[in-house]
Amino acid sequence: MSEQKPMSESRTIQSKLVLPPDTNHIESIFGGKVLSYIDEIAAISAMKHAGTRAAITASIDSVDFVSPALLGDVIELEAVVTSVGRTSMEVFISVHSKNLVTGEVRLTTESFCTMVAVDDTNRPIPVAEVYPETELEKRLFDTAPARRELRKQRRLMKH
Amino acid sequence: MSEQKPMSESRTIQSKLVLPPDTNHIESIFGGKVLSYIDEIAAISAMKHAGTRAAITASIDSVDFVSPALLGDVIELEAVVTSVGRTSMEVFISVHSKNLVTGEVRLTTESFCTMVAVDDTNRPIPVAEVYPETELEKRLFDTAPARRELRKQRRLMKH
Amino acid sequence: MSEQKPMSESRTIQSKLVLPPDTNHIESIFGGKVLSYIDEIAAISAMKHAGTRAAITASIDSVDFVSPALLGDVIELEAVVTSVGRTSMEVFISVHSKNLVTGEVRLTTESFCTMVAVDDTNRPIPVAEVYPETELEKRLFDTAPARRELRKQRRLMKH
Amino acid sequence: MSEQKPMSESRTIQSKLVLPPDTNHIESIFGGKVLSYIDEIAAISAMKHAGTRAAITASIDSVDFVSPALLGDVIELEAVVTSVGRTSMEVFISVHSKNLVTGEVRLTTESFCTMVAVDDTNRPIPVAEVYPETELEKRLFDTAPARRELRKQRRLMKH
Amino acid sequence: MSEQKPMSESRTIQSKLVLPPDTNHIESIFGGKVLSYIDEIAAISAMKHAGTRAAITASIDSVDFVSPALLGDVIELEAVVTSVGRTSMEVFISVHSKNLVTGEVRLTTESFCTMVAVDDTNRPIPVAEVYPETELEKRLFDTAPARRELRKQRRLMKH
Amino acid sequence: MSEQKPMSESRTIQSKLVLPPDTNHIESIFGGKVLSYIDEIAAISAMKHAGTRAAITASIDSVDFVSPALLGDVIELEAVVTSVGRTSMEVFISVHSKNLVTGEVRLTTESFCTMVAVDDTNRPIPVAEVYPETELEKRLFDTAPARRELRKQRRLMKH
Ligand SMILES: CC(C)(COP(=O)(O)OP(=O)(O)OC[C@H]1O[C@@H](n2cnc3c(N)ncnc32)[C@H](O)[C@@H]1OP(=O)(O)O)[C@@H](O)C(=O)NCCC(=O)NCCS
Ligand SMILES: CC(C)(COP(=O)(O)OP(=O)(O)OC[C@H]1O[C@@H](n2cnc3c(N)ncnc32)[C@H](O)[C@@H]1OP(=O)(O)O)[C@@H](O)C(=O)NCCC(=O)NCCS
Ligand SMILES: CC(C)(COP(=O)(O)OP(=O)(O)OC[C@H]1O[C@@H](n2cnc3c(N)ncnc32)[C@H](O)[C@@H]1OP(=O)(O)O)[C@@H](O)C(=O)NCCC(=O)NCCS
Ligand SMILES: CC(C)(COP(=O)(O)OP(=O)(O)OC[C@H]1O[C@@H](n2cnc3c(N)ncnc32)[C@H](O)[C@@H]1OP(=O)(O)O)[C@@H](O)C(=O)NCCC(=O)NCCS
Repeated sequence: MSEQKPMSESRTIQSKLVLPPDTNHIESIFGGKVLSYIDEIAAISAMKHAGTRAAITASIDSVDFVSPALLGDVIELEAVVTSVGRTSMEVFISVHSKNLVTGEVRLTTESFCTMVAVDDTNRPIPVAEVYPETELEKRLFDTAPARRELRKQRRLMKH
Repeated sequence: MSEQKPMSESRTIQSKLVLPPDTNHIESIFGGKVLSYIDEIAAISAMKHAGTRAAITASIDSVDFVSPALLGDVIELEAVVTSVGRTSMEVFISVHSKNLVTGEVRLTTESFCTMVAVDDTNRPIPVAEVYPETELEKRLFDTAPARRELRKQRRLMKH
Repeated sequence: MSEQKPMSESRTIQSKLVLPPDTNHIESIFGGKVLSYIDEIAAISAMKHAGTRAAITASIDSVDFVSPALLGDVIELEAVVTSVGRTSMEVFISVHSKNLVTGEVRLTTESFCTMVAVDDTNRPIPVAEVYPETELEKRLFDTAPARRELRKQRRLMKH
Repeated sequence: MSEQKPMSESRTIQSKLVLPPDTNHIESIFGGKVLSYIDEIAAISAMKHAGTRAAITASIDSVDFVSPALLGDVIELEAVVTSVGRTSMEVFISVHSKNLVTGEVRLTTESFCTMVAVDDTNRPIPVAEVYPETELEKRLFDTAPARRELRKQRRLMKH
Repeated sequence: MSEQKPMSESRTIQSKLVLPPDTNHIESIFGGKVLSYIDEIAAISAMKHAGTRAAITASIDSVDFVSPALLGDVIELEAVVTSVGRTSMEVFISVHSKNLVTGEVRLTTESFCTMVAVDDTNRPIPVAEVYPETELEKRLFDTAPARRELRKQRRLMKH
Repeated sequence: MSEQKPMSESRTIQSKLVLPPDTNHIESIFGGKVLSYIDEIAAISAMKHAGTRAAITASIDSVDFVSPALLGDVIELEAVVTSVGRTSMEVFISVHSKNLVTGEVRLTTESFCTMVAVDDTNRPIPVAEVYPETELEKRLFDTAPARRELRKQRRLMKH
């Protein structure tokens, strides 16, 4: 497939309020909630790039939660497709939490997911290539092969 | 209150997938679902401007659903504070739905809400002033007094 | 279509508890929650009149939230079809909140929606006519043409 | 407590759409969904009678689901307090499902719950007496002592 | 149908956290929430025995809630098919709540449901026989005919 | 802290039905749904070991989804605390999906999380030690220091 799309075309942004049902008794958000936000935005970003109605999660890189998001904070997520294989896309997701009263913004986590574009029978389908435009995009694009190699090794280790 | 903030500071963006539980038997999204997205993004936008942990909805202007969002579409919402009173903020929200396969983007609706910044005892608190920077922001800002006048008349009509 | 149905046939009632997940940090219900209740009851009311399995929301008239519903209150909604076009129905919805300890009942909001009856391919289908029986129903019925006129003007204004 | 309230004061009505997330793969509603609707309306009905902000479920009578509610049906629930003890209230709930296209209405189930009015530390508190006004209410009221006796025996049987 | 399966094959276990949205203002779980957990685990247990993709709830025995589960507790449910008819299965469910700080475990309730295995057109289909292996299973198995008799009488009583 | 608990005390099991709202248009479960199940069961398992009312997710190891869970499948999760630090616990989670009609069971994923026991002000608190009893438990226990070392390196790499 010779089609090419800029990384900006898959760029996706979300702002979410941390609400009571998302938190435990100490008003701290569940990690699972953040992970499902990450998966949702990664899927949207991948579907935008692939132009398909479905993308399924093949893997999520290890995720370190560096600071808690609390009840009443706003969580801001940003996702972008950083490189593609034949049918798979690597998506970079950053998550920040913001206390609107103090204005303090903190990194909650950064993560890479691999999403696979699929057709209506769940079979992988090829996607367009991707190219970076800004400096930051270039850095994410250029370091992708190294991450891809690491993932391959990780998968082999298990078998 | 002499503090001033640019409209861009309250700008908030959301992308959502239209999922099975959001739709009726004919795979068309519920109006109520879109309205709750509008209310959530308007609250986040208002809270960003006000720097408070809560903002409550005082009113929602008429909402016309010009085209249906369907199962599998992506909905994109954008909100910005367009003018302020003492404790209230007018927020403009636009909603588009996008079919990722055809690439077709359609306006779902546009709406204005009034949100009020409140403290922890539900009492209204004053907010900073707002000023526009771009051409589009200026248009929204300049037409605000007319909309405010209309809202006042509408409320009088009922009593 | 010559069939006629009384307004009472579409009359629909709901009572809901305001629960923790419906409220923000100050235990005040989200406007979006009330709006999704309004949309749900309007759809049921319209579907009862039309005798269809689906009705979609064409528009929602301005909604003023005159008093907040708080955690632990009961919300009472009532909806009725107040007039019909060929395929569209105007639905009137009133929402009250009740503090069960003090017994105090307060108007939260009143709203008019336009719902359209659709078949299984999302195409509008004709609905029966509607006629009022009680005094209150007659008032709502007689003032419908004026509201319809206003809606038409509002829609023109945007284009 | 000498206060007395008519049964009509606790009468509560709900209409719900059977939506995709409420059903299994064969588009038949989950029993657990109906049971949680029953519990919610019983709590509202009991709280209306007791004038408290909380009522907890002490028991639910055996429930027979005589016909399935299907995706797209409307479920109609009705609840009323039929008799009281010192702190407990017996609530009668009937559930019908309605196919809006054919107009067919079917009994889904009828049930009796016992709800106990509690204060903010979860302790039972006394409630007003209840009296019937209509013929149907009288029948439900007059047969209450027999049901109460059966429940007592059932509870003893287990120990 | 001559196939036979041990009771252990349908044994199903769940642990759930009692979270804010499951509770009322006094942090006590809703009975309806527990009932929907009971129905869900009973369906899984019955589907495991029947080897079908759906099982619908025909009836639930009377349920006594002997102690409240509170916010922050863990609820533990266990279900097993205790006897079968031709297409129906009796499922026994026990529910305990556990305070993880004090270690105290309390019985919340025990219940019997009747689930019916159905095909994709909602028609009852025959299920394998079931046999007990442990002492406890034998007791549940041997007392099943008496419970079945009681249920038949209960259903006749209503007509 | 000299207290010691066997791994079996934290062992936790869940069975979940894959329902319509958990899946996309092609009836394949969202990765984010599985991740939130993993986080929930890991939290319960860690809370059981720590005897606290809250445990927060510090990190999740990379997760490979090796086969999709589909609408109508049952998902079975199992979690156990495999080693502890001072305030942190490593939890091992395995996820299988089962097609109840064919009986086929497939590994969906295996994962390790680190959970931290916290008090009501979100501060880490010390936990009891853990010891293995079965062969499988011993293997998970003995390989824990190597995994801990890897995680430390991974965290350093990012800074
Ligand atoms: C992801 C999946 C479709 C891959 O299927 P497969 O039979 O291995 O197909 P392929 O070998 O053609 O692989 C397709 C692509 O996925 C990539 N892939 C497969 N497993 C992967 C993993 N664990 N991590 C990263 N990429 C992976 C392959 O490298 C390939 O990429 P490429 O086309 O860019 O070269 C399959 O493993 C699957 O369905 N997993 C479950 C996904 C899911 O449902 N997740 C949600 C929760 S269960
Ligand atoms: C219901 C409950 C409060 C009763 O507590 P208790 O210590 O037995 O208190 P009391 O003996 O004063 O009983 C209070 C009333 O409840 C009634 N009651 C208690 N158990 C009952 C049962 N299983 N069925 C019907 N009524 C019951 C008593 O008859 C009494 O009624 P009265 O005041 O009208 O005479 C207690 O069992 C409880 O908290 N259960 C859990 C309720 C719950 O949380 N349900 C949700 C899901 S777990
Ligand atoms: C349960 C149901 C399928 C039975 O249908 P039916 O036409 O009576 O079919 P049958 O007479 O063949 O009964 C099928 C089995 O259900 C049993 N059954 C029917 N009603 C029952 C009840 N109230 N309690 C216990 N078992 C019952 C029958 O005894 C029979 O068992 P068997 O095959 O082991 O002998 C039907 O009543 C129904 O669809 N009810 C609604 C179920 C539902 O949707 N529940 C969710 C909430 S509404
Ligand atoms: C996890 C957290 C409490 C650690 O706080 P801290 O100030 O680093 O505290 P400490 O240095 O005392 O670390 C506490 C323990 O966590 C461990 N830890 C910290 N970060 C970790 C990580 N990314 N991965 C694994 N373990 C980690 C430490 O090794 C230490 O373990 P030990 O007590 O067994 O030796 C803190 O980073 C945090 O709150 N993160 C957000 C957690 C959260 O809310 N998650 C949900 C979604 S945001």
